Amino acid sequence: MAAQQKNVGILAMEIYFPPTCIQQETLEAHDGASKGKYTIGLGQDCMGFCTEVEDVISMSLTAVSSLLEKYAIDPKKVGRLEVGSETVIDKSKSIKTFLMQIFEKCGNTDIEGVDSTNACYGGTAALFNCVNWVESASWDGRYGLVVCTDSAVYAEGPARPTGGAAAIAMLIGPDAPIVFESKIRASHMAHVYDFYKPILDSEYPVVDGKLSQTCYLMALDSCYKILCNKYEKLEGNQFSVVDAAYFVFHSPYNKLVQKSFARLVFNDFTRNARSIDESAKEKLAPFSSLSHDDSYQSRDLEKASQQVAKPFYDEKVQPTTLIPKQVGNMYTASLYAAFASLLHNKHNTLAGQRVVLFSYGSGSTATMFSLKLNEGQHPFSLSNIASVMNVKEKLESRNELTPEKFIEIMKLMEHRYGAKDFVTSKDCSLLAPGTYYLTEVDSKYRRFYAKKAAENGLVNGH
Amino acid sequence: MAAQQKNVGILAMEIYFPPTCIQQETLEAHDGASKGKYTIGLGQDCMGFCTEVEDVISMSLTAVSSLLEKYAIDPKKVGRLEVGSETVIDKSKSIKTFLMQIFEKCGNTDIEGVDSTNACYGGTAALFNCVNWVESASWDGRYGLVVCTDSAVYAEGPARPTGGAAAIAMLIGPDAPIVFESKIRASHMAHVYDFYKPILDSEYPVVDGKLSQTCYLMALDSCYKILCNKYEKLEGNQFSVVDAAYFVFHSPYNKLVQKSFARLVFNDFTRNARSIDESAKEKLAPFSSLSHDDSYQSRDLEKASQQVAKPFYDEKVQPTTLIPKQVGNMYTASLYAAFASLLHNKHNTLAGQRVVLFSYGSGSTATMFSLKLNEGQHPFSLSNIASVMNVKEKLESRNELTPEKFIEIMKLMEHRYGAKDFVTSKDCSLLAPGTYYLTEVDSKYRRFYAKKAAENGLVNGH
Repeated sequence: MAAQQKNVGILAMEIYFPPTCIQQETLEAHDGASKGKYTIGLGQDCMGFCTEVEDVISMSLTAVSSLLEKYAIDPKKVGRLEVGSETVIDKSKSIKTFLMQIFEKCGNTDIEGVDSTNACYGGTAALFNCVNWVESASWDGRYGLVVCTDSAVYAEGPARPTGGAAAIAMLIGPDAPIVFESKIRASHMAHVYDFYKPILDSEYPVVDGKLSQTCYLMALDSCYKILCNKYEKLEGNQFSVVDAAYFVFHSPYNKLVQKSFARLVFNDFTRNARSIDESAKEKLAPFSSLSHDDSYQSRDLEKASQQVAKPFYDEKVQPTTLIPKQVGNMYTASLYAAFASLLHNKHNTLAGQRVVLFSYGSGSTATMFSLKLNEGQHPFSLSNIASVMNVKEKLESRNELTPEKFIEIMKLMEHRYGAKDFVTSKDCSLLAPGTYYLTEVDSKYRRFYAKKAAENGLVNGH
Repeated sequence: MAAQQKNVGILAMEIYFPPTCIQQETLEAHDGASKGKYTIGLGQDCMGFCTEVEDVISMSLTAVSSLLEKYAIDPKKVGRLEVGSETVIDKSKSIKTFLMQIFEKCGNTDIEGVDSTNACYGGTAALFNCVNWVESASWDGRYGLVVCTDSAVYAEGPARPTGGAAAIAMLIGPDAPIVFESKIRASHMAHVYDFYKPILDSEYPVVDGKLSQTCYLMALDSCYKILCNKYEKLEGNQFSVVDAAYFVFHSPYNKLVQKSFARLVFNDFTRNARSIDESAKEKLAPFSSLSHDDSYQSRDLEKASQQVAKPFYDEKVQPTTLIPKQVGNMYTASLYAAFASLLHNKHNTLAGQRVVLFSYGSGSTATMFSLKLNEGQHPFSLSNIASVMNVKEKLESRNELTPEKFIEIMKLMEHRYGAKDFVTSKDCSLLAPGTYYLTEVDSKYRRFYAKKAAENGLVNGH
């Protein structure tokens, strides 16, 4: 019987999001929505989006090549590469095969893994798969690499401000600064039609917003309940929100994250957990007899539990919300963009802490899982990860476009989705050096990309 | 450091394919193709296909529920469920979530895993993921379950006879009769456009047949070369085709399997391996100076190596070809249908044997890997797996349709692909008891299925 690798987890991360964005306040005014509808109602500040020269493939190429470069990883040392995405450009050919271009030119084609798909959950599936591989008998000593990438776009209407776009790459291996506590994990998977993409030639989903929110919260409750049970069996004492330093949520829009954390606190109340003091008990007592189903519909409960949760939220959740509020829903990348926000904000004080993450993908698949952090060794240290991701500068150097320009781009992208035989503007003036971009889709639907010259002037075309 | 589980692999299998098929000889005559074009040129005997009441979801529901029932597996004992497929019905909601219906009604929603996608390779990715999970620190002692399912259909023309349809379910756990030799494994992944599905509202792929065959053979060569190197490092002696009892190939059509095995023999010749005797050397010597690229195009080499390989092929490959020749290309299920054919034909003599499998998915992703077999303990024994799969009876009880009927069905399916708001005929007269079938797609694209009453008369609707 072989021995398993120890402390398997995330060694390194890189995040990429488009340099083009629109302020939610501006969009709100343009759309004639009531003031605060997007900024307070959804809790969103800004939304990133791809222009015609970017897509999930170019963003992934950028994130992967940047990670390899910045952490000085030899592409030959990667033995597994997996992608999580729900942005379908081809129904058969995986995004992973596009990324192989980076590795083929180094002579490394022996790399397992394909794409994992179920709405916003695919990245979590890919991450678990990669960690399991390192812990398995088939591990060959090389790194795993996970990419979460999506471009979230919606038809004109109330869902449009909940878009976003990003790619996140994560390097996986043993002795990591971000370690999986594999036994503290619970899933909830079910057959529901809350958000899905049955209209094959359209990039836009079919969404039942209200149902999707309820499905999200029901899955959250179920995962939390199972996770608490498992924790108690394992540790011999009750789990509550005070047992993790931070909670990171899949974030379709920030308001749902606020509701979700409040829901965990309400769960703690019904379980009579130690996180709930006398004053909190008093405030939540009126809701103790609500049926489970009714509890999802009660505005009064939502308000009361958010009020009770507020101090915890400010401490345990708020530091995770920066990128999702600034870039929007990045589907598979959203949860890891929230986690990246935490590393950005708190990397100095995270060593020794437990962080609980909740991943949700409509349809539906959900997992709550726990990470334990340590400072790690350079280059695989929390501080270096924060420094490589360089979130502040990336956010600040973006270009705010007007609503008119945004709508024009959305129209062009709608037209281009699934199309062939066109060349793009190849305008990469807004892109950072080293960014990949789409140049052409030929008459056989084959896609071609180029890489903007790096700062040292080297061009690295494809 | 935790210890890994031992002898992880496939405990049980079930196969389902539609009861509707067409003889290749009949199709050949109807299409006005030259005699033997499909039967000898492609090497195919018959082709299975879904009618309007079946699809990849219904076939998967049937395979999973049948496996659970026939091996008496409590659905609560399943902790991971993964699907490999390239048949896209929804671009976001996974097939796995449809299968959750079976488990939800037993109160089990804590089941990890989603869908893995890259052409015909997704099933292999799902299988590796499941095995790795059992070997990982996050394994919770329950079974893994892998489903490979596809409906392969082509536009009218030369590719149409290479269709097929099936679903295969495999139960994964430790102490299995079919064990992964995890270190004897090699992959070849690359960015190519040989077969892909960029036309999103069509079920049909874009195929460059000649390129796809070359990509397949190049990936085969690359995997075999790496696998032989790894084997030598591990075992200290050379690997050749005599070191495995059987070779199982992904089978788009049988002719390519014949060519592939011959290619391994040619590889053995260039490596001066012990499988090649003097007479074989003499026959292949004229090709020893061919460049690697030219070797893929030489008809003379193909002929000579197939001739040399013939006795080996009859012994080591022919027993794996039954279902792929009778049902056609089942995409992700093809390789495992070939493996099922071997279990069906040889289950009595497989204990102690090594079987090497080659999985290929266009785009491209490929892995060659090794299994070691033992008889196992009932119900997880080779003989019981063969008995449960009941291949002979399933093949013999099929209904042969006329070319006219086949074309009529293909036209209806074309029309229905991506459509909403229709009810099917609900005609399940040709389906075996216990088979799931599609009844309706409503105005919101939601799909509804029913289950044909089991032989004991019980109806189990959904």
